[in-house]
Amino acid sequence: MSIQVTILGCGSATPTLFRNPTSQWVEIHGRFFLIDCGEGTQVELLRRKLKMSKLRAIFISHLHGDHFFGLPGLISSMHLMGRKEKLLLIGPRGLKQIMELIFKHSETILRFELEIVELEDNSSGIVFSESSFHVSAFPLNHRITCFGFKFSENPKLRNLKPEMVEYFKIPIAERKKIKAGADYLSPSGELIPNAKLCFEPPPSVEYAFCSDTAPHADIIPHIESVTALYHEATFENDLALRAVETFHSTAAEAARQAKQAGVKKLYLGHFSSRYRDTDVILSQAREVFSETEAVYDGFSFTVT
Amino acid sequence: MSIQVTILGCGSATPTLFRNPTSQWVEIHGRFFLIDCGEGTQVELLRRKLKMSKLRAIFISHLHGDHFFGLPGLISSMHLMGRKEKLLLIGPRGLKQIMELIFKHSETILRFELEIVELEDNSSGIVFSESSFHVSAFPLNHRITCFGFKFSENPKLRNLKPEMVEYFKIPIAERKKIKAGADYLSPSGELIPNAKLCFEPPPSVEYAFCSDTAPHADIIPHIESVTALYHEATFENDLALRAVETFHSTAAEAARQAKQAGVKKLYLGHFSSRYRDTDVILSQAREVFSETEAVYDGFSFTVT
Repeated sequence: MSIQVTILGCGSATPTLFRNPTSQWVEIHGRFFLIDCGEGTQVELLRRKLKMSKLRAIFISHLHGDHFFGLPGLISSMHLMGRKEKLLLIGPRGLKQIMELIFKHSETILRFELEIVELEDNSSGIVFSESSFHVSAFPLNHRITCFGFKFSENPKLRNLKPEMVEYFKIPIAERKKIKAGADYLSPSGELIPNAKLCFEPPPSVEYAFCSDTAPHADIIPHIESVTALYHEATFENDLALRAVETFHSTAAEAARQAKQAGVKKLYLGHFSSRYRDTDVILSQAREVFSETEAVYDGFSFTVT
Repeated sequence: MSIQVTILGCGSATPTLFRNPTSQWVEIHGRFFLIDCGEGTQVELLRRKLKMSKLRAIFISHLHGDHFFGLPGLISSMHLMGRKEKLLLIGPRGLKQIMELIFKHSETILRFELEIVELEDNSSGIVFSESSFHVSAFPLNHRITCFGFKFSENPKLRNLKPEMVEYFKIPIAERKKIKAGADYLSPSGELIPNAKLCFEPPPSVEYAFCSDTAPHADIIPHIESVTALYHEATFENDLALRAVETFHSTAAEAARQAKQAGVKKLYLGHFSSRYRDTDVILSQAREVFSETEAVYDGFSFTVT
């Protein structure tokens, strides 16, 4: 059980021939999602042989064009290709109005249900859940309302220690609760602590996405100890002033956020179009936090 | 003096890896224009080394996504790249509302003047003019309001016959009018017809764009005798019923429109994504109108 992420685009605002605007394909427990949908995402899905028909939900961080201008085209194509299944669209306020206006003027009546959930400014909480995982949103620190997203596996069942099951003669009816973390009260009234009966549960992994954002202390609790963090690093350190002006992060700022939050692994993206090569950004970040990688379009990683 | 057209995309609604949605780059007398702006157009401009900064105006045929979903991204990029010059945007009703809503939610205040001119449904007439050419719009026959566009060189000055200038001793002050087509009234009261004084003027060329549309007799007068016509041929002839349902044209229908209008040359485009190869469409059209070509992305032609 893991989370699989494929970078469809890790560029920033202005177009380049070597990097698409932001979009990511996320697979968790057999479910498929998109985070952001920059212009050209639908063609990138075709190129990577990722089927748009599989998508359950699309999460939009904010309404700057490089994060959602591919969305109307993707939804239109789903419609034209005969999608029947409901699609959930989660993003900031304004998304619903924009999508509805576009479909009104094209006189398009979608053949499937598109549920658009708009997040309140500055809100945080769970926005999608299934039995084995959930997705939460939290506010970032950008020029306009912007959300980060975190995919979290729910705590997993513990494995019972066979010798303890035998020794305490634990009835089958009790075992499920114990695997979920409960202690066991024996018929004689003795309380056996869970740790004595079970192995440690397999670790649950978490993946957090933070783009676009300037660093901020309030973000830390939302990304604390995640297994993998994707964080924007639009600029190298020398352009710190430009980063402040535009509410973006430098390489070192992204790395400091990761270090402070105690994440296991940091993936950098959302690079300014001035960087064809991202080696400088990567090395500046690694000076602060060694467990860092710079992504590129088509880069895929497993959060495990 | 001629019109140069570069096809940036000649696909139809659903995305493919081998054909972009509709967009064309048109150069006439040192001025640069775009007709339609499907998703991905700004990257295609980069790829073809065509500078978006040069664009004077963008003409949008209709509000189906494959003809304008690249527009918000293109305008945003012009803004981010520091454009100062005014840009004219001409298209159907609704375009202004969509663009304004998108820029409102991204809190973008454009650094240049974007003048959006919305065409009345079913209207026709000149929508852009300079001293040596003009562009007119006219209604097509599609599922929603849709316009064709025609680029027309204004009539050119005639060249005077030197021996006639000398024989009639035509004063310099009179020559400009004669070159523009006037007859000459000599001091003795004799009216000398223009044809005796001048060579035939160089022909003025016209380029018309018709996509998306089902064939219709009302379109003919607007494209009559044009030097080159780009006409959609979404389907091969066997799919005539599908063409009727979707207000598109088959190969033969496009060719019949060209033949009836007496155009010099027909260029076919807007091919359904089912056609990787367009040979069938081209041969079906040529059976009706031999002077036909099928375009592809990157195809460039000179209207002369």
